[in-house]
Amino acid sequence: MGLLAAAVAVDAGAESILCSVTDVPTAVADADALFFERWMLSVETGDAGPWRQVPARCGAFVRAYMEGERYASDCAAVAAESLAFASQALASGDGGATAKPAWVFDVDETLLSNAPWYAANGWGLEELDDATFDAWADVAKAPALLSSLKLYNELQGLGFHIILLTGRTESQRNATEENLLFAGYQSWEKLTMRQPSDMGKTAVQYKSEKRAVLEAEGFKLLGNSGDQWSDLIGLPVSTRSFKLPNPIYYVT
Amino acid sequence: MGLLAAAVAVDAGAESILCSVTDVPTAVADADALFFERWMLSVETGDAGPWRQVPARCGAFVRAYMEGERYASDCAAVAAESLAFASQALASGDGGATAKPAWVFDVDETLLSNAPWYAANGWGLEELDDATFDAWADVAKAPALLSSLKLYNELQGLGFHIILLTGRTESQRNATEENLLFAGYQSWEKLTMRQPSDMGKTAVQYKSEKRAVLEAEGFKLLGNSGDQWSDLIGLPVSTRSFKLPNPIYYVT
Repeated sequence: MGLLAAAVAVDAGAESILCSVTDVPTAVADADALFFERWMLSVETGDAGPWRQVPARCGAFVRAYMEGERYASDCAAVAAESLAFASQALASGDGGATAKPAWVFDVDETLLSNAPWYAANGWGLEELDDATFDAWADVAKAPALLSSLKLYNELQGLGFHIILLTGRTESQRNATEENLLFAGYQSWEKLTMRQPSDMGKTAVQYKSEKRAVLEAEGFKLLGNSGDQWSDLIGLPVSTRSFKLPNPIYYVT
Repeated sequence: MGLLAAAVAVDAGAESILCSVTDVPTAVADADALFFERWMLSVETGDAGPWRQVPARCGAFVRAYMEGERYASDCAAVAAESLAFASQALASGDGGATAKPAWVFDVDETLLSNAPWYAANGWGLEELDDATFDAWADVAKAPALLSSLKLYNELQGLGFHIILLTGRTESQRNATEENLLFAGYQSWEKLTMRQPSDMGKTAVQYKSEKRAVLEAEGFKLLGNSGDQWSDLIGLPVSTRSFKLPNPIYYVT
């Protein structure tokens, strides 16, 4: 099949289909498209393990994924699966008679989208500059991932306690709260951020420890949404974990 | 983009591109292609949770995925990632000075491919008939997943102890061993199968218990390859887990 060649042809309009198809080196385009789809699956399952940059060969595809309809569509599908589980879990009494049913959300690329910043900074193809990213975060104007905002409101409507658990540091609390409000998130039970004593911990260690604290506080962790496996794995885990797509960066 | 329309057009040959593109309802085809890619990602990440049948809307895409180059290509990529980790883990001494470095493989859709049977039985779109499948398994002629066979031999060459851990029952041992040999797998340290006392256990429970036994026996479980998350999750886990694609069935 000639997926990329074909996509180019269709995008170019019907009148130029023949020349587009013959102009594009189909075998190469095919191999690159296949490589991207495989890379995406590999990243999303965690098979890829730690990685630092989007492979150059995937660059055009990652950009198309993020800027086109697939990213939004995939995020919306995860949100729909999350809501279906949440409703069923509460209905079946998994919340427990006394425990507080809770849902844990990561912040970046889960509730907030930094896509505007990444669009201006190479969509993961360039090494991430922490200082530049932090400056963007301080501006506190990242938009919501719209399907996450919808899910968030629906979960609150169902009676879930909403816990935000982010790798951002305590020093970023004001900017983060301001950004969440800007994006439309109106309230939360807790916003847990890295304390000085959490510095140097991996995300898995830090987030697992905080989930253990939440359980000790009486929260029943039914769901957990994150764009990184490090948001989701490590004990204790939530009853169900929901992995949002993220082909632009990896957090250890 | 008009991915399916485009693929149809390219497949049909250059002379019929214009009529093919105009004949296919592009918007619908696009939505179906997007739906499949999303469904695939959802199944592979585990976001979908338990499912019984491939959605009808994905039927043509699942068939194309399995019969085309993507399935083989995706499996080969997982094998390459597995080998890269395996080599590095041994080199870094993660095998331990005294422990026996081990790799756990699931059997069906990991070492052996039942694609010939599924091709004749609706590629997951029909309810799985256990009796018919068992009859196919008894014939013991399932081919190897070629990239898994290559990985298997490479891991043995590196000195890994190879453990096969399958949901198949002890009564299927002879047929399973015969099939593994037929497919080219020449030796293994252990082939662990469900005993009468394991009946009724979920795959996660059964496989976790058996991994715990392996650890108690002194094996250092560095890698685990499986096409189901139930092959991989549950304590103890291997140092790294590798999820092979499987869009045709789900094991709880």
